Amino acid sequence: MMINFCQFGAGRIGNVHADAISANENANLKYVVDVNGDAAQALASRHGASVSSVGEALADPDIRAVIVASSTDTHADLIEQSVKAGKAVFCEKPVDLSLERVNDCVGIVNAHNQPVFIGFNRRFDASFAKLKSELDGGAIGKLEMIAITSRDPSPPPLEYVKVSGGLFRDMMIHDFDMAHWLLGEVPVEVFAYGSSLVDPEIGKLGDVDTAAVTLKTKSGVLCQISNSRRAVYGYDQRVEVFGSGGMLQAGNRSETSVVKSNADSVQSDKPLLFFLERYADAYGAELTHFIDCINNAVTPSVTIEDGKVALQLAEAAIESLNSGRPVGI
Amino acid sequence: MMINFCQFGAGRIGNVHADAISANENANLKYVVDVNGDAAQALASRHGASVSSVGEALADPDIRAVIVASSTDTHADLIEQSVKAGKAVFCEKPVDLSLERVNDCVGIVNAHNQPVFIGFNRRFDASFAKLKSELDGGAIGKLEMIAITSRDPSPPPLEYVKVSGGLFRDMMIHDFDMAHWLLGEVPVEVFAYGSSLVDPEIGKLGDVDTAAVTLKTKSGVLCQISNSRRAVYGYDQRVEVFGSGGMLQAGNRSETSVVKSNADSVQSDKPLLFFLERYADAYGAELTHFIDCINNAVTPSVTIEDGKVALQLAEAAIESLNSGRPVGI
Amino acid sequence: MMINFCQFGAGRIGNVHADAISANENANLKYVVDVNGDAAQALASRHGASVSSVGEALADPDIRAVIVASSTDTHADLIEQSVKAGKAVFCEKPVDLSLERVNDCVGIVNAHNQPVFIGFNRRFDASFAKLKSELDGGAIGKLEMIAITSRDPSPPPLEYVKVSGGLFRDMMIHDFDMAHWLLGEVPVEVFAYGSSLVDPEIGKLGDVDTAAVTLKTKSGVLCQISNSRRAVYGYDQRVEVFGSGGMLQAGNRSETSVVKSNADSVQSDKPLLFFLERYADAYGAELTHFIDCINNAVTPSVTIEDGKVALQLAEAAIESLNSGRPVGI
Amino acid sequence: MMINFCQFGAGRIGNVHADAISANENANLKYVVDVNGDAAQALASRHGASVSSVGEALADPDIRAVIVASSTDTHADLIEQSVKAGKAVFCEKPVDLSLERVNDCVGIVNAHNQPVFIGFNRRFDASFAKLKSELDGGAIGKLEMIAITSRDPSPPPLEYVKVSGGLFRDMMIHDFDMAHWLLGEVPVEVFAYGSSLVDPEIGKLGDVDTAAVTLKTKSGVLCQISNSRRAVYGYDQRVEVFGSGGMLQAGNRSETSVVKSNADSVQSDKPLLFFLERYADAYGAELTHFIDCINNAVTPSVTIEDGKVALQLAEAAIESLNSGRPVGI
Repeated sequence: MMINFCQFGAGRIGNVHADAISANENANLKYVVDVNGDAAQALASRHGASVSSVGEALADPDIRAVIVASSTDTHADLIEQSVKAGKAVFCEKPVDLSLERVNDCVGIVNAHNQPVFIGFNRRFDASFAKLKSELDGGAIGKLEMIAITSRDPSPPPLEYVKVSGGLFRDMMIHDFDMAHWLLGEVPVEVFAYGSSLVDPEIGKLGDVDTAAVTLKTKSGVLCQISNSRRAVYGYDQRVEVFGSGGMLQAGNRSETSVVKSNADSVQSDKPLLFFLERYADAYGAELTHFIDCINNAVTPSVTIEDGKVALQLAEAAIESLNSGRPVGI
Repeated sequence: MMINFCQFGAGRIGNVHADAISANENANLKYVVDVNGDAAQALASRHGASVSSVGEALADPDIRAVIVASSTDTHADLIEQSVKAGKAVFCEKPVDLSLERVNDCVGIVNAHNQPVFIGFNRRFDASFAKLKSELDGGAIGKLEMIAITSRDPSPPPLEYVKVSGGLFRDMMIHDFDMAHWLLGEVPVEVFAYGSSLVDPEIGKLGDVDTAAVTLKTKSGVLCQISNSRRAVYGYDQRVEVFGSGGMLQAGNRSETSVVKSNADSVQSDKPLLFFLERYADAYGAELTHFIDCINNAVTPSVTIEDGKVALQLAEAAIESLNSGRPVGI
Repeated sequence: MMINFCQFGAGRIGNVHADAISANENANLKYVVDVNGDAAQALASRHGASVSSVGEALADPDIRAVIVASSTDTHADLIEQSVKAGKAVFCEKPVDLSLERVNDCVGIVNAHNQPVFIGFNRRFDASFAKLKSELDGGAIGKLEMIAITSRDPSPPPLEYVKVSGGLFRDMMIHDFDMAHWLLGEVPVEVFAYGSSLVDPEIGKLGDVDTAAVTLKTKSGVLCQISNSRRAVYGYDQRVEVFGSGGMLQAGNRSETSVVKSNADSVQSDKPLLFFLERYADAYGAELTHFIDCINNAVTPSVTIEDGKVALQLAEAAIESLNSGRPVGI
Repeated sequence: MMINFCQFGAGRIGNVHADAISANENANLKYVVDVNGDAAQALASRHGASVSSVGEALADPDIRAVIVASSTDTHADLIEQSVKAGKAVFCEKPVDLSLERVNDCVGIVNAHNQPVFIGFNRRFDASFAKLKSELDGGAIGKLEMIAITSRDPSPPPLEYVKVSGGLFRDMMIHDFDMAHWLLGEVPVEVFAYGSSLVDPEIGKLGDVDTAAVTLKTKSGVLCQISNSRRAVYGYDQRVEVFGSGGMLQAGNRSETSVVKSNADSVQSDKPLLFFLERYADAYGAELTHFIDCINNAVTPSVTIEDGKVALQLAEAAIESLNSGRPVGI
């Protein structure tokens, strides 16, 4: 069934989702809402949609689903208003930077019977999805260790760093979700080290740009995560899981398979530049999943509870970094 | 500028091109023409186009360009009618199975000032395009040798083999074009060996399913091509160029980057299944190039002359196979 | 100059060193000493050496150097007796399982002007050596993070586990040395998680078989280490260093370069089986280095101080594991 | 049983074999013979051997085997004299540059019951040996195509080119043997293209430095070989075999596994420099095989007949190059 969408937010990630809607034969973008009227108009025009307001959009019975891709501080409110209006919700991570606010939001969501999907796009990357599928299928026996590497090509603007909630809530939250998903359980303890090595200005803001976090589950499975806000060779996104029967690794992807051998070395492509390139297909795949959930009345594979767990792990990491001790969940 | 297209042919490759038109923001599919009315209607409906006839479509001044994706024996006629009607032409390879017929068609095309593009899609594969660009940029000095490997996952139906013109005209023609493109000149001699090892029925039809061809240029550059109609591990499409300053290789692509290490071995993905998967992006890229040529009044990078050269090389290979001797061009 | 050696210890690693001596054109094995007379005789015969005693061997002025490859609890004594006797010492790791004992030994060594080399063989692996050399040469700018993976193919016998000093002193000690070497400084803090997932019997002995440790330097550089006593796909020994200008990775080595592509997957060799295979060349290279140090009166690149640091880090890791908190050095 | 060797030839390859003898616990080098007395003396001294003459060495009943590593024009004579004297023979390729002379030599060898081994070292490379073993074990079903790439890092001195017998007899002869070995049968036809692209002086000597040869068997299996006298990225030695059930590839080896990712690209090691590096272990392995054949009275896996076939293929390739036509065997 064709689903009519209203999209809140017309920024960079908003454009990604609007493109995904246009490319999906079961989706139609009817409204775009953004505090920046020009951005809303530009995006709406490009996709044959209309500019609207939150109230008008949620009141329209034609609208079956919303995409929340606006600024983080609006996410929880928009989720709540949308489910109350009977709309299915696809919300960008994070639900909120405050765990308390997320808890309230979870309550509201649970009280309304609507599909609510949190956009942890990496779960829909073909390589990570295959790794998870092989793991669940027993390809490496019993899971024992995980290593997750996430490095951005370059740090965001300082203005963004200030409102981002910090590296753990903004960047490593993806890795916390990846860990939670692969572990299949919520870790019981978190230990974090962090440094400001990339840009001292980030350190002055009280944030870190380099971090190493370890998670531990009840059964003793261990997970190591490393993050850096800068990798000059491109977006570095790798996962390795190790078990009683072997190891699964999901590596980076590159634009071409060209290898040049000359008098210096053997040279191949750098990893794809950043998330828009690496996860281009994943954005389409998560939208397709969301639409399938609506049409088949199935609970999305990434719920608001998952969003809450990722934030809990981020909060615990921050507490660990500040206290210098491991923190229980 | 938005280009209105009429597409001749609603089969498998026709669907690929229609999808590419839909995905291209500068293209619109107005008409679909096919002798199979149901196929035409299905494709047209899926893309909001109308079913039409050759005559009606070519008479419509709104139509700026045509895609020729019908059966091979109609290509030359449709190219000629289309350029006479003032339409730009994107034609699937080959132009025709007869070199004489191609020569006539080239004459007609040259007499009409319309962009005519031949769909040698592999030139638009990101890896092969980068290899070519590096080669032309001098990355490996002076070109000395080329090796091209092309293997299909499984042979086509015997019914298709009968009308295909044989392995050299139907399958290796892509490699002849690749060789011609990379060499930057027309080879002066061709030597071919061929066998029927995959399916004896193919041999009974007078065709081969396994072939090794060598090309030589005036300056002594050598090119080896190998083809097989069956590769159980997937579509094997690789190019290697070697020069005074090094080597460039373009390898296969796979669906994921997952590597599994277990007690048996270290296992990674097979190559992508077939041309629809491997060249998915290339089909979009060649359409974009064609549209750019129309809008900027530029000659396409793959002309009908290139189509003719590829067929000449195929004819020479067949003559070599039959005579047991190298054949000059 | 030809160096005459006495070797203490005729077990598995003793055989490795005796082979290295035989293969080195500047070395000669004169004596073998072992409490197991048969083992001593067998090794001596194989290399044209004589069985001897500690006293006799150290009293022989022809002996310029000793290899200490006996059981761990004899290392410190043999080092001390040897340097007092004016012999250069090549000692297998660890110096001792007790930090106090190591400190005493360091004192004795410092009081005698003899080359004392600790056999951290991994530093002499061609891949790790190149990684270190590139790092020191500035290939990736300023060092920011390290990740070290060490997994043995299968756990040692429980009898060995009992006297090994535990995973941190016996196995991860190599990784602590690798970290110390690559960091170029002694970390200031260690945090350890460990589990018994491979074999519950190991856990019953109070040891772990799976561990994740994080190190932090004064300047904030972070190092993650992971260990497992079992990797069914072979000996997994990898190092990754990350800096302001890029990343260096040293991966596993395999016996052949053969890749098989079939209907299932693309399969390549597993990593080399275990340390004898992976570090076969490294054992020769470290002996060559030791001989060069003697002949050129140069301090070995791995000193007894390095042995002490590795043990300090192991002790700190054990304390962290037991206390559940990071431990300062 | 310990085998006493006399070695004819004290040049570069002679040193390789003498080192292999020294490293082999079942072999002893007793005599070295070379027309260059200084070279003979140096090699003999380095290995505790004596300088001798052909007559004296062959008359010594202690000598069980000879290594023929002298100049090519002495090979056939030394093989004949040695088997007549009751010695086992390990002869470097080629047996002779003249097929007639080789035929005579085969006759003499067949009339004397001695193991005669021809040093096609590549068969003992771990990767090629595994590829052959997998092929024979049915890993890829029925063999259909082979591709062999052989490129030297740089051309030999022109003085050597003059006496080498040309690229086909001197360099590609290794690939002809590889093809013969992998095919498991003697090809029935050869077609050769060759060019002088690397150094025009080689062309002036009537030789080629770049060549592409195709072989065909009775059953239609095809084999493509490419050679170049120069590859600036190192010694390029690869084999690919393709069959009804898949593909086996044996690639190059490198000194380390280090991968550097920086702002430019992802860089790994070049292939090992040349044959001494790439085939270091193969030289030891072929000697071990030869000694096993002597001790177990087994026919060597590479016979003088194999040497003859390789030369036949080279002769056919030369005739094909000169005549411009395929040549039957």
